[in-house]
Amino acid sequence: MSKKKKHCRESFVTMTEMVLPNDTNTLNNLMGGRLMHWMDIVSAIAAQRHSNRIVVTASVDNISFSKAIQLGNVVTLNAFVTRAFNSSMEVYIEVTAEDVPSGRKIETNKAFFTFVAVDQMGKPIDVPEIEPETAEEQELYEGALRRRQLRLVLGKRMKPEDANELKSIFKL
Amino acid sequence: MSKKKKHCRESFVTMTEMVLPNDTNTLNNLMGGRLMHWMDIVSAIAAQRHSNRIVVTASVDNISFSKAIQLGNVVTLNAFVTRAFNSSMEVYIEVTAEDVPSGRKIETNKAFFTFVAVDQMGKPIDVPEIEPETAEEQELYEGALRRRQLRLVLGKRMKPEDANELKSIFKL
Amino acid sequence: MSKKKKHCRESFVTMTEMVLPNDTNTLNNLMGGRLMHWMDIVSAIAAQRHSNRIVVTASVDNISFSKAIQLGNVVTLNAFVTRAFNSSMEVYIEVTAEDVPSGRKIETNKAFFTFVAVDQMGKPIDVPEIEPETAEEQELYEGALRRRQLRLVLGKRMKPEDANELKSIFKL
Amino acid sequence: MSKKKKHCRESFVTMTEMVLPNDTNTLNNLMGGRLMHWMDIVSAIAAQRHSNRIVVTASVDNISFSKAIQLGNVVTLNAFVTRAFNSSMEVYIEVTAEDVPSGRKIETNKAFFTFVAVDQMGKPIDVPEIEPETAEEQELYEGALRRRQLRLVLGKRMKPEDANELKSIFKL
Amino acid sequence: MSKKKKHCRESFVTMTEMVLPNDTNTLNNLMGGRLMHWMDIVSAIAAQRHSNRIVVTASVDNISFSKAIQLGNVVTLNAFVTRAFNSSMEVYIEVTAEDVPSGRKIETNKAFFTFVAVDQMGKPIDVPEIEPETAEEQELYEGALRRRQLRLVLGKRMKPEDANELKSIFKL
Amino acid sequence: MSKKKKHCRESFVTMTEMVLPNDTNTLNNLMGGRLMHWMDIVSAIAAQRHSNRIVVTASVDNISFSKAIQLGNVVTLNAFVTRAFNSSMEVYIEVTAEDVPSGRKIETNKAFFTFVAVDQMGKPIDVPEIEPETAEEQELYEGALRRRQLRLVLGKRMKPEDANELKSIFKL
Repeated sequence: MSKKKKHCRESFVTMTEMVLPNDTNTLNNLMGGRLMHWMDIVSAIAAQRHSNRIVVTASVDNISFSKAIQLGNVVTLNAFVTRAFNSSMEVYIEVTAEDVPSGRKIETNKAFFTFVAVDQMGKPIDVPEIEPETAEEQELYEGALRRRQLRLVLGKRMKPEDANELKSIFKL
Repeated sequence: MSKKKKHCRESFVTMTEMVLPNDTNTLNNLMGGRLMHWMDIVSAIAAQRHSNRIVVTASVDNISFSKAIQLGNVVTLNAFVTRAFNSSMEVYIEVTAEDVPSGRKIETNKAFFTFVAVDQMGKPIDVPEIEPETAEEQELYEGALRRRQLRLVLGKRMKPEDANELKSIFKL
Repeated sequence: MSKKKKHCRESFVTMTEMVLPNDTNTLNNLMGGRLMHWMDIVSAIAAQRHSNRIVVTASVDNISFSKAIQLGNVVTLNAFVTRAFNSSMEVYIEVTAEDVPSGRKIETNKAFFTFVAVDQMGKPIDVPEIEPETAEEQELYEGALRRRQLRLVLGKRMKPEDANELKSIFKL
Repeated sequence: MSKKKKHCRESFVTMTEMVLPNDTNTLNNLMGGRLMHWMDIVSAIAAQRHSNRIVVTASVDNISFSKAIQLGNVVTLNAFVTRAFNSSMEVYIEVTAEDVPSGRKIETNKAFFTFVAVDQMGKPIDVPEIEPETAEEQELYEGALRRRQLRLVLGKRMKPEDANELKSIFKL
Repeated sequence: MSKKKKHCRESFVTMTEMVLPNDTNTLNNLMGGRLMHWMDIVSAIAAQRHSNRIVVTASVDNISFSKAIQLGNVVTLNAFVTRAFNSSMEVYIEVTAEDVPSGRKIETNKAFFTFVAVDQMGKPIDVPEIEPETAEEQELYEGALRRRQLRLVLGKRMKPEDANELKSIFKL
Repeated sequence: MSKKKKHCRESFVTMTEMVLPNDTNTLNNLMGGRLMHWMDIVSAIAAQRHSNRIVVTASVDNISFSKAIQLGNVVTLNAFVTRAFNSSMEVYIEVTAEDVPSGRKIETNKAFFTFVAVDQMGKPIDVPEIEPETAEEQELYEGALRRRQLRLVLGKRMKPEDANELKSIFKL
C-alpha cells in the first residue's frame, strides 16, 4: 500500500517579527539566539502542518550569521518541509530582514531544522512523504539525503565511510 | 612579537535556568528554540570573557536534541572557549537537565557556537590565542580545526577538496 | 501633479504566532488583549510598507471576539492597507486560528486599525494613495469612507448630521 | 423575583504600569497594542469583580490614540462596569499617563470593552444588574444602550433600521 | 528656611496584577521573586511621586511570605511614602490577593522598601519631608526611625550600641 | 536516630544573567526588583538541591543595593544553603556584576532567603541538616541562629526579650 504524499506548499508558513530592544545586543543588532528561537517556532509549525501531529525538534544544522539585523527591522521567516524520512521531517527556513522605512531588504539566513512527529505519549509516528513540484523543491529534496547523512555522522549514528551521499561533496 | 595566550578556564561560564510554562511545547517539554537562545547567551559571555570585547554570533554547528527536558527542570549550561582563530572563537557548551526533587540529572546536549570579536564600529578585531591545559581541552582544541573546515565548506567559503582536516574523518 | 499610487498587495503582511500558556486565561483560551497586541504589530508593519515611514497607531475600530482560540493553536494574521487619506491609512486584518494536529481552521476576527505616517519629529506626513485591484479590495476601499466618518463621529471630530456616508447604512 | 443589583464602585479597579523599552516603538512611544493589552486585563478584572465569574472578552469599541505616551511614563488605568445585559457587561476604562519627575499628567484614552460571564464549561451565565449612583455613572449607564446597538449593527446582528437608540445620535 | 512638606496620600499608588502561568512555581503558586519585582515597581512609583525625581532602590526590609497566592488570582499592591530622610524615602507596601470568582480576598504581605532620589548624574538630592495625617500614618512615621536604625546596623553603617531607637524594641 | 547531614557545597548553584534593556530603569541601571527575582530563583534551586523537595519562599532578609549594575553587565549569582531548621533552610546569595569588555568586576550584594520544603500538598516536611566544612561556612552557620531570631521578632512570632542570640549583637 502506498503512503500518502504531500507537497511542500502544504506546509509553507510565513512568520513576521519586529526586532524589539530586548532582542538586541549592545550594538543594537538582533541576537543570534533570539533568531534561532523564531526559526524553531516557524519550522515546528511547518512540520506540524505536514504531519498533522505534535512535533519535537530533533536537530538543527549548521547556521551561519553573516549579516547583522538591526533594532526596528522587520524579520520575515519562510519555512516548509523539504523531505520526510519515516517519522522525521527536514524543514528549510529562509530569513529576510527589512528596514521598512527605507525599503531596504536583505536575505540574512538559510537553515535546516529536523523534527520528529510523535503521538501523545511522545512515541515517534510515521508521516506522509514529500512530492517536490518545483525545481528548487526538487533540489532541496535531493540534498536532504546528503544533509541527513551529515547529521548522522556528526551525531555518531553513522560511520563516515558509509556516508556515500556525503562523500560525493568531497568528490571522491 | 608573540600574542597573548589565555586558558579555557578563564572564559568558563555556568548559567542555570528553570524551565517555565512559556518555554514548553504541548508535551510540557522545553522547546529547542528556547534552549538555543540560552546557549547563545552563555557562549556569548564565554567569548566576551576570553576576548574582553563585544562579540557577535558568527555560526552554530549542528546540534541534536535527543533527550527531552521537562517543565520545572533545572537546566545547567557550561561554556568555555576551545580555540581562537584571529578574531573568531569557538565556544563549547555542555547542557545538563536536572529534576531536582528526584535528583535525576542527565546530559542532554553538546554544542559549538562561534563568535567574532568586534570593536564599537562592528569591525573584527584579533583576540588572544587559547593554550589548552587538560586532555579534554587539548582534544577540543585539535578538533576545532576540523569543525572550522566543515563550517567553511558548509558556508561555501572553502572548497571541499581543500578541507584536509575534514577529509580525515572520512579516512581517505 | 498626481500623487504616487500603490496597490494593496504591496503592503500585505502575514504574521504567525503560537498561543503559549502566558497568552491564555483560566479557560486556556487566548486573551483578547494579547490578540489585539499582535493585530497592532501586523497592521503597523503593513502601514510601514505602504508608506515607507514610521507609523503610529491612530485608532482601532470595533472588534468582536466571538470565537475562542485555544492554547497551542497557531494564529495567522493577514493585513494590508485598504485606503489612505493624506497621512492616515486604514489597515484591514483577518485572523484565523488553526488546531494544526487536527487540521481544523477557523476564521476568528476581522478588524480595522488606522495609522498615521510621521517623520522623525513625529509630524504627520503624506502617504501614497491606494489603487484597489480586486473586487474585495474595491469593496474595502469604498467602505473605508463610511468607517472613517464613523471614527470621526465617535471621536467627536465630525457632527453626526454631516456624516453622509455613514447615514447610508441607516438607509435614510 | 428581582435580580441582585450592584454598584459601579464595586467593580472599580486601578492598574498602574511603567512604560519599559520593549513596550515602545522607534519614536520611544508606547505601542497601541501594548496599551490595549493592559486595557483588556484591567477591564477583565472589573468584569470579574462585578460578576464573580470567569469572563471572556466579547468586544472592544472604537478607541482613538491621539496622545503619545512616552518611555518611562507611569500609565494609570481605571475601569468599572457601566451596565450589564444578561450575561454581558460593558466596562469603561480611562487611561492617564504621567511623567512623574515633572508631575505632568495627561488623559490619554477612554475605551469601552464588553465581557461575557461564563461557567467552567464556557457557557454564558447571567450577572447582576448595575445601579448607577453618580451623574457620570448615570450618563454612562444610559449611553450603554446606544453603544450596544452600534456593536450589534457593526457585528451584523441587528438591522440598522431597528437601532432606535443609535439613530438618535443622527438626530433623525 | 523650612523645607516643603508633603502628605502620604500624595504618593499613594495602586497596582493590580493577574498571576499568569510563568509567574508560578510547580505548586501553581506565585513565586516570591515575581512578587518582589512588582513591589519594587509600585514602591518606586510612590517614591517618584513624592520626590518628583528619578529614584533608585536603596534597600528592602525583611519580608515574610506566609500565605500562598494562586495562579489566576488578582494581586493588589498599595504603596505610599511613610517618611523621608534627606534624599532617602521609606515606602510602605501592602499586598492583597483575591480569588475574584469566589470573592475571597486575603492580606498576604507588608513590606518596606527605601529609595534614594537622584539627579540625572545619579547624585543624591534632597526630597520633601512627610507630614503624617492619620493615626496609621503617624505610627508608620514614628516606626520609620527604628527601621532605619535596623537597616544601618544590618548594613554595618551604625554600631548596634548607638541604635537607641532600635534598642527600645528589646525593652532595654 | 540521627538525621542525614549534607554539606553546603552540595547545594551550591551559579546563575549568570545579562542585563537587558527591559531590566533597567531610566538611568540604564538594573532595577532592584529584577535582581530580587533572580535571587529568588537561584536560592530556590539551592534549597531544592539540599532538600530534594519542592520549596516555597518563606522570607527574605534585609537587602541593601549600594552599587549600581549597568545595562549589558553580566550578573553572577552564587547561592548555597547555610543552615536548616526542621523544614526551613537559610540560603546565602552573593551577587557580582561584571563589565566583561573592560574586565571590571564588583561585588554588589549579599542576601539571605529562607525556604520551606513542602510535599505535593504544600505541607512542610523535614530536610537534612547542614554540616559546615570551611571557616566561612562555619561563620554563616553560626550567624544563621541570630538571623533567624531577627526574622521571628520582625515577624512577631518571637518576643524581643526572648531573642537571646539577637541581643548579643547589641552587646547586652
